[in-house]
Amino acid sequence: MLINCVAYQDGRKLADIPVEDISDYVARPECFVWVALRDAEQHELLKMQEEFGLHELAVEDASRGHQRPKIEEYGDSLFVVVKMAALELDELVIGEVDIFVGQNYVLSSRQNSEQGFLGVRARAEREPQLLQQGPAFVLYALMDAVVDRYFPIVDAMETELEAIEERIFIRGSQRNNIERLYALKRKVMTLRHAVAPLLDAIGKLHGGRVPAVCQNTQEYFRDVHDHLHRITASLDTIRDTIGTAIQVNLSMVALEEGEVNKRLAAWAAIFAVLTAFAGIWGMNFKNMPELDWRFGYPLALSAMASVSFYLYRRFRRAGWL
Amino acid sequence: MLINCVAYQDGRKLADIPVEDISDYVARPECFVWVALRDAEQHELLKMQEEFGLHELAVEDASRGHQRPKIEEYGDSLFVVVKMAALELDELVIGEVDIFVGQNYVLSSRQNSEQGFLGVRARAEREPQLLQQGPAFVLYALMDAVVDRYFPIVDAMETELEAIEERIFIRGSQRNNIERLYALKRKVMTLRHAVAPLLDAIGKLHGGRVPAVCQNTQEYFRDVHDHLHRITASLDTIRDTIGTAIQVNLSMVALEEGEVNKRLAAWAAIFAVLTAFAGIWGMNFKNMPELDWRFGYPLALSAMASVSFYLYRRFRRAGWL
Amino acid sequence: MLINCVAYQDGRKLADIPVEDISDYVARPECFVWVALRDAEQHELLKMQEEFGLHELAVEDASRGHQRPKIEEYGDSLFVVVKMAALELDELVIGEVDIFVGQNYVLSSRQNSEQGFLGVRARAEREPQLLQQGPAFVLYALMDAVVDRYFPIVDAMETELEAIEERIFIRGSQRNNIERLYALKRKVMTLRHAVAPLLDAIGKLHGGRVPAVCQNTQEYFRDVHDHLHRITASLDTIRDTIGTAIQVNLSMVALEEGEVNKRLAAWAAIFAVLTAFAGIWGMNFKNMPELDWRFGYPLALSAMASVSFYLYRRFRRAGWL
Amino acid sequence: MLINCVAYQDGRKLADIPVEDISDYVARPECFVWVALRDAEQHELLKMQEEFGLHELAVEDASRGHQRPKIEEYGDSLFVVVKMAALELDELVIGEVDIFVGQNYVLSSRQNSEQGFLGVRARAEREPQLLQQGPAFVLYALMDAVVDRYFPIVDAMETELEAIEERIFIRGSQRNNIERLYALKRKVMTLRHAVAPLLDAIGKLHGGRVPAVCQNTQEYFRDVHDHLHRITASLDTIRDTIGTAIQVNLSMVALEEGEVNKRLAAWAAIFAVLTAFAGIWGMNFKNMPELDWRFGYPLALSAMASVSFYLYRRFRRAGWL
Amino acid sequence: MLINCVAYQDGRKLADIPVEDISDYVARPECFVWVALRDAEQHELLKMQEEFGLHELAVEDASRGHQRPKIEEYGDSLFVVVKMAALELDELVIGEVDIFVGQNYVLSSRQNSEQGFLGVRARAEREPQLLQQGPAFVLYALMDAVVDRYFPIVDAMETELEAIEERIFIRGSQRNNIERLYALKRKVMTLRHAVAPLLDAIGKLHGGRVPAVCQNTQEYFRDVHDHLHRITASLDTIRDTIGTAIQVNLSMVALEEGEVNKRLAAWAAIFAVLTAFAGIWGMNFKNMPELDWRFGYPLALSAMASVSFYLYRRFRRAGWL
Repeated sequence: MLINCVAYQDGRKLADIPVEDISDYVARPECFVWVALRDAEQHELLKMQEEFGLHELAVEDASRGHQRPKIEEYGDSLFVVVKMAALELDELVIGEVDIFVGQNYVLSSRQNSEQGFLGVRARAEREPQLLQQGPAFVLYALMDAVVDRYFPIVDAMETELEAIEERIFIRGSQRNNIERLYALKRKVMTLRHAVAPLLDAIGKLHGGRVPAVCQNTQEYFRDVHDHLHRITASLDTIRDTIGTAIQVNLSMVALEEGEVNKRLAAWAAIFAVLTAFAGIWGMNFKNMPELDWRFGYPLALSAMASVSFYLYRRFRRAGWL
Repeated sequence: MLINCVAYQDGRKLADIPVEDISDYVARPECFVWVALRDAEQHELLKMQEEFGLHELAVEDASRGHQRPKIEEYGDSLFVVVKMAALELDELVIGEVDIFVGQNYVLSSRQNSEQGFLGVRARAEREPQLLQQGPAFVLYALMDAVVDRYFPIVDAMETELEAIEERIFIRGSQRNNIERLYALKRKVMTLRHAVAPLLDAIGKLHGGRVPAVCQNTQEYFRDVHDHLHRITASLDTIRDTIGTAIQVNLSMVALEEGEVNKRLAAWAAIFAVLTAFAGIWGMNFKNMPELDWRFGYPLALSAMASVSFYLYRRFRRAGWL
Repeated sequence: MLINCVAYQDGRKLADIPVEDISDYVARPECFVWVALRDAEQHELLKMQEEFGLHELAVEDASRGHQRPKIEEYGDSLFVVVKMAALELDELVIGEVDIFVGQNYVLSSRQNSEQGFLGVRARAEREPQLLQQGPAFVLYALMDAVVDRYFPIVDAMETELEAIEERIFIRGSQRNNIERLYALKRKVMTLRHAVAPLLDAIGKLHGGRVPAVCQNTQEYFRDVHDHLHRITASLDTIRDTIGTAIQVNLSMVALEEGEVNKRLAAWAAIFAVLTAFAGIWGMNFKNMPELDWRFGYPLALSAMASVSFYLYRRFRRAGWL
Repeated sequence: MLINCVAYQDGRKLADIPVEDISDYVARPECFVWVALRDAEQHELLKMQEEFGLHELAVEDASRGHQRPKIEEYGDSLFVVVKMAALELDELVIGEVDIFVGQNYVLSSRQNSEQGFLGVRARAEREPQLLQQGPAFVLYALMDAVVDRYFPIVDAMETELEAIEERIFIRGSQRNNIERLYALKRKVMTLRHAVAPLLDAIGKLHGGRVPAVCQNTQEYFRDVHDHLHRITASLDTIRDTIGTAIQVNLSMVALEEGEVNKRLAAWAAIFAVLTAFAGIWGMNFKNMPELDWRFGYPLALSAMASVSFYLYRRFRRAGWL
Repeated sequence: MLINCVAYQDGRKLADIPVEDISDYVARPECFVWVALRDAEQHELLKMQEEFGLHELAVEDASRGHQRPKIEEYGDSLFVVVKMAALELDELVIGEVDIFVGQNYVLSSRQNSEQGFLGVRARAEREPQLLQQGPAFVLYALMDAVVDRYFPIVDAMETELEAIEERIFIRGSQRNNIERLYALKRKVMTLRHAVAPLLDAIGKLHGGRVPAVCQNTQEYFRDVHDHLHRITASLDTIRDTIGTAIQVNLSMVALEEGEVNKRLAAWAAIFAVLTAFAGIWGMNFKNMPELDWRFGYPLALSAMASVSFYLYRRFRRAGWL
């Protein structure tokens, strides 16, 4: 589905143009064309391939989807795949944006994502001095928007982790904790999978040999690179902490089990003693003088109660009860 | 066993040729020869070595089999080993394809695999403009076919992992889970073993110094490289997740044991109390007035029942029962 | 909030200057300006950007805060982000200093930290021969001050770890130990997160290609680099040791549980034997001669006591009690 | 102990020569000398040092033994240390071969190993066209022989691992499994220790800058390198699998313990119920009508039996018994 | 404290010289000065700085101590920090040697270590042809001495590990094992911390670009490098094995606990059966014919004994007792 198809000149919008005219505008070196697609169908991509002269393999990747994040050079043009992440109902939804960048065009094709880039376009159009820098700046703006949307997700993960941590030493919450830790781990891995390859790829857009099209915007890409660095570092810290928390969880489970065992042992001891006493006075020996005492029974009961109480106190003090 | 032996010119099939004529065709720079063997015997390989002028060490590797995936240069020619993977009855079967590529020949020798490359040849013959690019394109097509067949296997592994994950927090399924996790881990390791070395090797076929024969097909090999990247990244994620799942499994085992212990403790307590009561009223003291009461026995029974019920309720509320 | 704004010439303080005059002094190649801000507000930073001609992206990073530690070149100038760490009430508080360094200016902007750099300025002013080396030396002095403040924190962590280790094999302290280990692990990770990226970054200021502004102070930065190396190596050792300690903790929990189980088993055995004896003599067989013996009862009691005592001794010797 | 001392020319054996003549033959550029020592004593090595003009440090290393596998250049000559591995009575025995290679000599000195290289020499002498390539080919042949002997050991390890895996989920075999896993892990680590450093070292003998003496045999060394790669990859896979198996073992131990606990709980419950019933009818209330029933006793017994049977069935169905 | 201060010429000792004359001798290119300090005080170091013209930062590092092992170039001179390790009463004591090396001087400053270098000096003086190579050879000799002293420590660690391993599967030794494993792990980490950074540093003294002063002694430093490699590889193997041993320990603890549980379960079962029997015959039913049998009681006792014995035998056979 075509979202926008606009030609720009000197940083300003020239016109919304029909798809058929794209190749004409691309042929004019002084202007550039910025097209946005969403959930593009095969025939739309083929049309774009024709208008922009895109490389067959790049188009094939884009139409198949499910690529790794990457930045590939095809001659003078770039093919960029980035992953969009969104939290929907506590689920992590991963979308994909494929961006084709040439000397005077940008084509973005978004799949499986509710989040659009209208805000990016609007902001870019408001600042002509930036848009003047051409397609590379648009690429930067798109990537920056995608990467900026990772931050609240990482924050949510950190918040979730902290929420779990607050309960990690609380008795009886271990089953719930381990379930949440596992779910969080999965989300972290999914996001990392979507983010980490981009970190390597974007290093190619600043410092060292840089594709011609990005020559003048290196500092912008270094900034995006830096943001990605922060995100992967945060994800790695979360991952490491989850690992420790899972180990701690196991210790806590074992500790709680030990506490239950101790309590069990204590009560068992108290009742075992009671039963033994009762058993003794329940024996049928002829000659058991205390059985004939007048206050034998109450004395026996109070003896049993005293011993129980004494044991109870001792176990209590030892922390078993 | 010889499967095919065909000479091509200008991207079109010239003829099926007898093995003896191979060296004649190879001597003609304008055409190339594509031979496919299956479970080749020693003498067949030696014949090929003679016709194509293959390097002794490469032929030795091919005849021995069980090589690591690799791409080796012998002068102008390449020797490529890739592993084929197939799931047969839930077992991972690893086969091997050895490919010799020269300026105007391709020789593929497949071992221990049911999966052939007839489809690859048919497709290549349908698209002469691609086949025109010569042996490097055939190499690409073969490798692409092999790598494409990894994807459904990785998908099956992810599906299996998800199936396990759905049962990971379910009581009583821990023994089964750990068995399945272990089996899956083994399969992942086997596939990784077959795939990962190729990732490094294929990096030599694009970017940097590239063997002459692959000079013009770099972008195709980058594409294969990228697919391999996705596969190893997925395998690493599965492996990491299995590791976490195994740890979680242990926690779950401990938790379930703790629950059993608690239940045991609760029932033991109830019966210990009952037995203690019965023991007390079973004592033989002369002077135990309640024994003589008319409704002493039913009162005693109902007292015991009440206490049991009270304990039952308390344990129930505490989640022990 | 502006803390200081001073111009220096030949290593000596020229004058406190008003913010508006900064650009005049910066224009004079023979002197340099050193400005210190604290918790700067947006308009202060914009003013500084104007006076010093700072790069937009750097100022944006500084005004947003929460950057990774990094050292970035913008043309001839450097933008440096370092993290300050302080222990407050056993909590690790992470602050940030953003430093802009040009040919003849240094601007430091401190956020979320109680620790100032007045001491650094005072020391620098006392040693004109060092200050003469210009902005790079000031950058070194600031970074050195920040890094030096990491050492007592790492020391405190090592002390805490040793305190835990002294209790690691002590019975009954496992719950407390695991809580402290986890808290310590968190602190270590937080500090590592704040320190490690700087290690890579600072490598760019000595050896190899070095930004022009730091050309003559490479040995100083190598020294800071070396200190950072020590800190990260110590943190890694602490982290590794915590990991082992957590594993050991789990073994200790299991061991202690085993000991409780053994004690439980021993007492249960003793009372089970007692109860069995009492049960036997409580049977109602007509013909149980020992019941009619004169000293039957005391004999029975002493038999029961003897058996209990014998079992007690055996369990004691076996280390179960 | 001197095993062989032979001079070769044009790939053919010239003569067995006495040790004293070595330096004469070494001085003749058209022939080369191949000497083999076994468990050489100090004076033998010193004699060799003199005849061949070996470097002092290399001879010192060789006489001390217990070096890491390595390949060192001393001017035009190479000093190579490789480890030989053999399984003797299920124990891994590590020997050492020190090889000195110069323009026209090879000296191999074998220590602590029963495995000789007579086969290598015989094969080399049978193929003059290979031996013509000189000392580098001999070095290759020796290393190839050493590396080939690693394969059956790795195979034996894999077989042992598979044997353990077949028993890993079998009840009651956990103690034995963990012992075998630990022993296997030790062997794997020992072999890895002996093999892995060679992997890095041998990379210096092909590709990139290669010592002059090995210039024409690069493809052979690449082949050895590749074999080493397979071996270390296999060892890493075994190691990784052992790690997982140890974790699984722990889960299995916990699971089996849980099963024992459940069985214990079930039987305890059945007997606790029995005892409670008996206790109730053993109470001494005057007015317990069922005691006076004619069939009270058999009814009581069958009630107890029924309850026990019912519980037994329920536990059975729940999988506790 | 000054230990030695000697001038050498042509590899031979010239004279013990007073500290004040050092700068005179250093000024004479044909001789070199070798000074050894021990636990040097600030003023001694400052004196040395003056005589030798040492770099301020290096002297500061040396006077502070607690540096990481490192090798730093200051112009033509080197500043080397190595760690000395000694086992004293089973405790690992880490000392430090700071070595300053110039074109014609060596200054070593030893701290916190009982081990001196008199042997190194004596040996060097006995071999003038080596000492002739100048300061670099002295540096080599000192480092070689330090590194050689690591070997017995690593051997002691391996011996300790083997001692633990012999007890790792022995019942009842798990608490002791885990304590020893943890203590050993700590020692390994401490030594690794002291050794590993040197490994990287010493790589700068051979191969590639080498400081001028060490140009002719590269092979010696490569030898030291190699020894360090062996040490760190051994430490890594020990560390890895300790990790596995700790995991195995946990399995053993769980296994032993399981065995205790089984024994407990078996005895509990036997006595529960006894008690149930006694309880049944202790019931007060009127009509219990066996109670009136003449040999009822002995029959009952032998029935109970038989059942107990039968259970005992079964448990025994099942390995529970």
